[in-house]
Amino acid sequence: MVDAGLDALIVSHRPNVQYLSGFAGSAGALLVTRDASRLVVDFRYVTAAREMLEGRPGGSTTVERADRSEDETIVLLLKSEGRQRIGIEAAWMPVLRFNRLSAALAGEARTPLHAGTPVPVLVPTERIVERVRAVKDPAEIAVLREAAERLSRVAVEALPQIVEPGRTEAEVAAALDAAVREAGFNRPAFDTIVASGPNSALPHARAGGRRLAPGDPVVLDFGGVYDGYCVDLTRTVQLPPTTGEFRRLFAAVAEAHAAALAAVRAGALTTDIDHAARQTLERYGLAAAFGHGTGHGLGLELHEEPRISKSDPARPAEAVSVGMVFTVEPGVYLPGTAGVRIEDDVLVVENGCDVLTKVPIALW
Amino acid sequence: MVDAGLDALIVSHRPNVQYLSGFAGSAGALLVTRDASRLVVDFRYVTAAREMLEGRPGGSTTVERADRSEDETIVLLLKSEGRQRIGIEAAWMPVLRFNRLSAALAGEARTPLHAGTPVPVLVPTERIVERVRAVKDPAEIAVLREAAERLSRVAVEALPQIVEPGRTEAEVAAALDAAVREAGFNRPAFDTIVASGPNSALPHARAGGRRLAPGDPVVLDFGGVYDGYCVDLTRTVQLPPTTGEFRRLFAAVAEAHAAALAAVRAGALTTDIDHAARQTLERYGLAAAFGHGTGHGLGLELHEEPRISKSDPARPAEAVSVGMVFTVEPGVYLPGTAGVRIEDDVLVVENGCDVLTKVPIALW
Repeated sequence: MVDAGLDALIVSHRPNVQYLSGFAGSAGALLVTRDASRLVVDFRYVTAAREMLEGRPGGSTTVERADRSEDETIVLLLKSEGRQRIGIEAAWMPVLRFNRLSAALAGEARTPLHAGTPVPVLVPTERIVERVRAVKDPAEIAVLREAAERLSRVAVEALPQIVEPGRTEAEVAAALDAAVREAGFNRPAFDTIVASGPNSALPHARAGGRRLAPGDPVVLDFGGVYDGYCVDLTRTVQLPPTTGEFRRLFAAVAEAHAAALAAVRAGALTTDIDHAARQTLERYGLAAAFGHGTGHGLGLELHEEPRISKSDPARPAEAVSVGMVFTVEPGVYLPGTAGVRIEDDVLVVENGCDVLTKVPIALW
Repeated sequence: MVDAGLDALIVSHRPNVQYLSGFAGSAGALLVTRDASRLVVDFRYVTAAREMLEGRPGGSTTVERADRSEDETIVLLLKSEGRQRIGIEAAWMPVLRFNRLSAALAGEARTPLHAGTPVPVLVPTERIVERVRAVKDPAEIAVLREAAERLSRVAVEALPQIVEPGRTEAEVAAALDAAVREAGFNRPAFDTIVASGPNSALPHARAGGRRLAPGDPVVLDFGGVYDGYCVDLTRTVQLPPTTGEFRRLFAAVAEAHAAALAAVRAGALTTDIDHAARQTLERYGLAAAFGHGTGHGLGLELHEEPRISKSDPARPAEAVSVGMVFTVEPGVYLPGTAGVRIEDDVLVVENGCDVLTKVPIALW
């Protein structure tokens, strides 16, 4: 906020609100000034918010009740305190809310200004909270480590029981979701993907009515939310009998996955980690079959910073730091035929990475 | 679009994309012009999108593959076709995306303009698709009716088995979620609320570690997603022994709920339906204990139009129409003591409403 010359920052993106305040409700905005953090919530959330924040060790956020809307309360506070440069989260605040807040802050200032009348201004900002969130603190790492171990046990213990010919993808997904809950997760982190046969070539297939058959490749991509934090794992198997073509794809992706893991260390560029996977697949003639990025950050959100992907003008390369946690998940997809994806979750350490998920690359 | 003088509309809100195109993926934007609808998706979704849209009866959306980003493809299409007034969904598009699209559309036009050089302009629009979505067509009504009946069976058959003293709120919620899935839902529509004892006075409590005890009021608020559509139901019970104070609250809310249902008919104002509930609670001296709106629309989203609430400058009253589906859910909350909420889902018909959920007001 000091760097951006801001007197205040309106934090409206929920995971950012939760990260800064500890409040996990589905409404509320945080008004952060240089000396205070206030959660503005309406009637429905005031009691829950006070209980949640008052019980938080080291918490310093106070609760402001919005008698009308959150934004009216925010505008009243900003005006009464004479705040001039007010940051908003440009990646998350909708145009409508921005325009309404701007108009409310301008208020009578919309009539011709006298010289020297200060007009509050909304300043679009990017990634102020996200950059802090990308580096996990020890308590967050402990939660993510525990979550990854629990998810790994689901993969090792439950998957071999669940993935059987004759079951539909949806049945497999439901059994997998139940195993995720039994493992202590609050809920699956996303709609579980069970993509069998030709469906395995759809990177974002869902689980449908197709029945698993002998010889099918099956992509199993599932995750869980544990104490608010998301972990995410993918393994691909082939139901017997195996084929040479599947083994070729599998070997290529496994090698790309290992190459990307080997490229992770403090200071490595996100694009270099991605390139390590991509280059390996190129050697197999499979570069064009890998159409997504190599990974994404994990935390309060399933997809957060850093993004491990090709260089892009909108998303320049950046160096990863100790404490970042992200997925490494190369894949290849041959439309109509087969797909393979292998995904683990890693923590960046000084000279490499700590693979938080502990699952054999080849499940069986 | 004709009314707003638009040459094109960028539909980016996912439920709106799904409603218009049938595509339910987690990325993609729809570029709607007066004669065409094109879904712009990246590599990962192209195959799935083509399969989904080509198999859709009556569908007219074609798929455009975004080789770089969705927005670059959208800008290229808009520029090559000379579109001038391009609507965006102001309630959903973030400031950052708006600013980037604006800059990309202006392109070299940011240098001094020659007279007559047309500059494409992004026009913030509100509720263009949402107003259409608020009125359900017969196929949607059939899905919502089926979903409400399935959710009702969960309430009638499973709840009495599940809600027992000694269990924690979280255990009750997990059992309820399992029953919702067994009833054929894709997933719960939101984090199930099981709020017992003093927690019942928190309108947005979640299910926690508190154990249900004799004499507890218990608010049970749960929902399911069925074939993409959301239904939502709340009942409040008191574990024996019952108390006079609970019966008083329960009677007040049940009467408010009945009064609101009686106020629903084609042409009724949303504010009048809300007022019917609020006025009843006022007679019980409980108006101040009812801090939320009376209901919300149901459809592809859990909370959509219409909003059944008090009049508000930001959300003026509007008449409800035949085919709208929404919740009716008055509640009272006495902090530290007890809360009661009763919620059903209704379909507006000409002279009244059809209550889609079929569950006794008093579960036992």
